[in-house]
Amino acid sequence: MIDSVDIEIIGYVNSCFTEKFGAPRQSGLVPSAEARLRMIEPFNRREMVRGLEGFSHIWLHFLFHRVKAEGWKTTVRPPRLGGIERIGVWATRSPHRPNFMGLSVVKLRDIDFSDGVELVIAGVDILDGTPVLDIKPYLPSSDSIEVATEGWAVQEFGALEVDFLPIASQFCAEYEAETGVPLQQLISEILREDPRPASQRVKKDRYGMRLYNVNVHWHVSDAACQVLGCEKLV
Amino acid sequence: MIDSVDIEIIGYVNSCFTEKFGAPRQSGLVPSAEARLRMIEPFNRREMVRGLEGFSHIWLHFLFHRVKAEGWKTTVRPPRLGGIERIGVWATRSPHRPNFMGLSVVKLRDIDFSDGVELVIAGVDILDGTPVLDIKPYLPSSDSIEVATEGWAVQEFGALEVDFLPIASQFCAEYEAETGVPLQQLISEILREDPRPASQRVKKDRYGMRLYNVNVHWHVSDAACQVLGCEKLV
Repeated sequence: MIDSVDIEIIGYVNSCFTEKFGAPRQSGLVPSAEARLRMIEPFNRREMVRGLEGFSHIWLHFLFHRVKAEGWKTTVRPPRLGGIERIGVWATRSPHRPNFMGLSVVKLRDIDFSDGVELVIAGVDILDGTPVLDIKPYLPSSDSIEVATEGWAVQEFGALEVDFLPIASQFCAEYEAETGVPLQQLISEILREDPRPASQRVKKDRYGMRLYNVNVHWHVSDAACQVLGCEKLV
Repeated sequence: MIDSVDIEIIGYVNSCFTEKFGAPRQSGLVPSAEARLRMIEPFNRREMVRGLEGFSHIWLHFLFHRVKAEGWKTTVRPPRLGGIERIGVWATRSPHRPNFMGLSVVKLRDIDFSDGVELVIAGVDILDGTPVLDIKPYLPSSDSIEVATEGWAVQEFGALEVDFLPIASQFCAEYEAETGVPLQQLISEILREDPRPASQRVKKDRYGMRLYNVNVHWHVSDAACQVLGCEKLV
């Protein structure tokens, strides 16, 4: 009996999420979060993606490469349970898990052959630089089980209200004109889901995150957040 | 940049499918196909599955261990396209793929602690002895995308009619009384989906498969199959 196996990286993701804080907790929550999966040799042959363009969604198997050094534990404290209750690691999708393997379904927007093979994907919850292990088409006939019960991970309702100070809106409009990235929409979708770890919710009222090369600052009070400003990193 | 990673086996599946022929092409097609995932050290601690019992379905990441020696190609000929047209391997779930990683959603029936930690699962398409790499809860809120488009993998309709000769029905009834396995139901669900590879459909009209320790023989004509007999392997 084998007890381990060597798995090769097939590509890397370039994503707007350059740090963990701000990255959505599941794929699909932030539709404007676009990324590119760049296939590497020998997994980047054009014919390997033939027929993939007909699928609206794909599965990505990837590695939680940033948390590997932190290790894993047999139980974790999910943010959705307030960070207090301990759940078995197999009952969660925590990145701190044996093998550090992640699984996300993302929208397949396009396949770009202009420089190698790159998949343009959206609705990602994947950090920049993430190594990918496999790609599979999403098959609604077998993968979509609406009636499945969700255990402890019941859905939170009541998304946060998000508004922008004029100076922040102006920055976003200029950034979008320059880069094509719909930054204000992206920030709104991220903050609406409240990216703060449960442990930080009472500690402070100002937060910052990095998206692409931009620092975003916001303020939280009750069920609303206000984007105070953005600045480009040099 | 890393180019490969060592992934540990966390458990092994004991399944009714002891050979590839007869195993369903996707999970969920054969609800009566039960199996057991036995967790191994150090991934078999009881607290690691705490909270998992609330989920009706789980994802299994596993290895297509039986086809590894056969290697992979950049394109494959899916049975659903008659085995003629070539599709890119990333646009399929073919077992002959880089890294030989499989992904299936299965029903979680029970967690058995009577001898270590074993997950009792159903609707499997996984061969006996399959090594498992990860377990994740199925989250309908993010995993169920009913409107996703299915590309070339359009659903086949028109399942086969299945009937049993009296001698075959009698064998199944005795086997069920002895082992608790609903063998006739299981065989019906498997044959209904027509397990024959496209390349064999015109070549012969009699087929055999192994389920648990039983050889099953059937005959196919037009859109019907008839189970001719079953026998126990010694």
